[in-house]
Amino acid sequence: MDKGRLEAFSDGVIAVAITLLVLNLVVPDPGRTQNLAHALGQRWPGYVAYVISFLTIGIIWVNHHAMIGRLREADHTILLLNLVLLLTIGLLPFATNLMATYLRAAHGEHVAAAVYAGAFLLMGCSFAILNRHILFAKAHLLETQLDSGRRRLILFRSVSGLAPYVVAVAVAPLSAYATIAICGVLAAFYATPLATGGT
Amino acid sequence: MDKGRLEAFSDGVIAVAITLLVLNLVVPDPGRTQNLAHALGQRWPGYVAYVISFLTIGIIWVNHHAMIGRLREADHTILLLNLVLLLTIGLLPFATNLMATYLRAAHGEHVAAAVYAGAFLLMGCSFAILNRHILFAKAHLLETQLDSGRRRLILFRSVSGLAPYVVAVAVAPLSAYATIAICGVLAAFYATPLATGGT
Amino acid sequence: MDKGRLEAFSDGVIAVAITLLVLNLVVPDPGRTQNLAHALGQRWPGYVAYVISFLTIGIIWVNHHAMIGRLREADHTILLLNLVLLLTIGLLPFATNLMATYLRAAHGEHVAAAVYAGAFLLMGCSFAILNRHILFAKAHLLETQLDSGRRRLILFRSVSGLAPYVVAVAVAPLSAYATIAICGVLAAFYATPLATGGT
Amino acid sequence: MDKGRLEAFSDGVIAVAITLLVLNLVVPDPGRTQNLAHALGQRWPGYVAYVISFLTIGIIWVNHHAMIGRLREADHTILLLNLVLLLTIGLLPFATNLMATYLRAAHGEHVAAAVYAGAFLLMGCSFAILNRHILFAKAHLLETQLDSGRRRLILFRSVSGLAPYVVAVAVAPLSAYATIAICGVLAAFYATPLATGGT
Repeated sequence: MDKGRLEAFSDGVIAVAITLLVLNLVVPDPGRTQNLAHALGQRWPGYVAYVISFLTIGIIWVNHHAMIGRLREADHTILLLNLVLLLTIGLLPFATNLMATYLRAAHGEHVAAAVYAGAFLLMGCSFAILNRHILFAKAHLLETQLDSGRRRLILFRSVSGLAPYVVAVAVAPLSAYATIAICGVLAAFYATPLATGGT
Repeated sequence: MDKGRLEAFSDGVIAVAITLLVLNLVVPDPGRTQNLAHALGQRWPGYVAYVISFLTIGIIWVNHHAMIGRLREADHTILLLNLVLLLTIGLLPFATNLMATYLRAAHGEHVAAAVYAGAFLLMGCSFAILNRHILFAKAHLLETQLDSGRRRLILFRSVSGLAPYVVAVAVAPLSAYATIAICGVLAAFYATPLATGGT
Repeated sequence: MDKGRLEAFSDGVIAVAITLLVLNLVVPDPGRTQNLAHALGQRWPGYVAYVISFLTIGIIWVNHHAMIGRLREADHTILLLNLVLLLTIGLLPFATNLMATYLRAAHGEHVAAAVYAGAFLLMGCSFAILNRHILFAKAHLLETQLDSGRRRLILFRSVSGLAPYVVAVAVAPLSAYATIAICGVLAAFYATPLATGGT
Repeated sequence: MDKGRLEAFSDGVIAVAITLLVLNLVVPDPGRTQNLAHALGQRWPGYVAYVISFLTIGIIWVNHHAMIGRLREADHTILLLNLVLLLTIGLLPFATNLMATYLRAAHGEHVAAAVYAGAFLLMGCSFAILNRHILFAKAHLLETQLDSGRRRLILFRSVSGLAPYVVAVAVAPLSAYATIAICGVLAAFYATPLATGGT
């Protein structure tokens, strides 16, 4: 099965999900707002969550690009594991909205932070499972044969990238700000050339 | 007529429809919620409906991929039957929202379940009609000539896949949960390698 | 300039616009609804408007496909006239929502019908202007040289297709139902093989 | 790294962002409206903002097309700077909504105008930074080698295009209408063939 349409469909879903993030930025109701600058300022968690989620989805897209780029063709299992990955990416606008809403509410910020980091963790797990399947179960579908050490290294990177999100979920009951800070640092880290090794 | 843009447009519509499903997951209003974890938990029908609809649309995409992949080129009738199929796929975010909303409301769950399974049934019928048209009326547009038995088998699969959705609609007046369970089992079944024969 | 990205971008915008139509189908509020079947039935203008708009946008996509297919490459003016066409297509989810909302309201249905048919007319005019530009001003960019009679015939079809929409706008002050009926008949007419001559 | 998927993803995000602009055009509530024509007329800032933002995003797409068209392939930094550009484009539906809402509100129009023009300025800066990186830091990735003067000219155009947006932000505290007029004139200017030199 040709991988071109798999890429096109994945790009489409990721592009829609990343752009839907803007719907979480709600214009303050003029009738209930005295000072627009102040009202916009109060909504800073929304902007922070927008930037973190946008960069994180964007980085997943770059990594998805690299992962599928290694494939010569796709099979049914790859299509379905990819579908599960897209399902988790599709949840991120909701998780982002939840985080942004409750970080400035009087309660619920710990739960919202756990859901937020948990959604990234779920996405990372789906990514690692698909990557593992491609690298090991379906190594014959790879464009270039990679030796076992190289394949293990690529997978190790996918999996080790999950650890900070586990921490981010774990600290959510203590501090929602710590959770969001970890997610932000991760997005910034992956967005710098420091984090690149292979892509 | 080249089939490339037909695929690109269909991928686009399906990608948007599948990603719009997330808009059905509404963040609980902080002012009306005491306990966010509890409020999110109560909304489980939304998550279940999201997963079922996402997988079902994803599987239709995989099947669409296979169906169009058999074509060498498209003609006007194929474009229009495909448009009708996309019209039914476009309805699914609405049907999903309806199901998720009324499964936890005090009334209306039977109607909502019938509409939900009915929307899948409608999509399946459109798919089978397009598939039948491609396989029989426009067999000369196929990439590879398929013998009559093979064509009948492919169509039989499309049509027989509709039967469980007929049952799902039929049981809706008895139990909305039974309807959603049938839809869920079907999505899970088609997502497993068991269901593959050809793709 | 390569026309591939022009097609890809246009397909993207049209695919998003056509899929956003579903957002006009609003789930009835369970707290204000006694009978879901009845509440859904009352919203029939929404379903009718969805189907008409979906088919009309879909047909514009098919025609766009044919128009751009005649081009060998695009230039700056084509890109910008195409952008204006996309701008008018982008308005259709709003016009559809307006029509569906006011057809079942106590007032405003005539204005809404005029806006609805007017939006289709605007889209048709943009299409004809772009088509005219491609066929006459930029005939050297055509893939195949078409003789003057053939080019005039193609343009005549684009322009004559506008007349019924002028009628649909004109009858809006008399009957919103007549307007929507004309739009519906046009969509059905163009969707049948009868209407094809060239695509 | 192949630039095809970079283009496809960028086209997807831009196409979704440009089409989401229509969600800012809200249908007046029939229960609170006496005269639909009047209610629609009052919302003229929404239509003006829609047209300006649609054209501006469309022109950025055309320029993005030209910028990426010069590349032979992309690298990690280009992907990430492009992601930042897409992040700023993704903000425009929000900024457009803010402008349209507050231009007809009793207060806040100066802040809204500053945010609106500021969002365009941010997008223009991201564009110029990416363009600079491609033209100077990564000149070896260009499809055709451009001499230093030509590269400086292209970058100069990107940067000098920012100046009017700086003015538009600066005049926002004086007159929101002046800000929107500048943005509108810029969109119209870039949309005419006058503005083209290179694309």
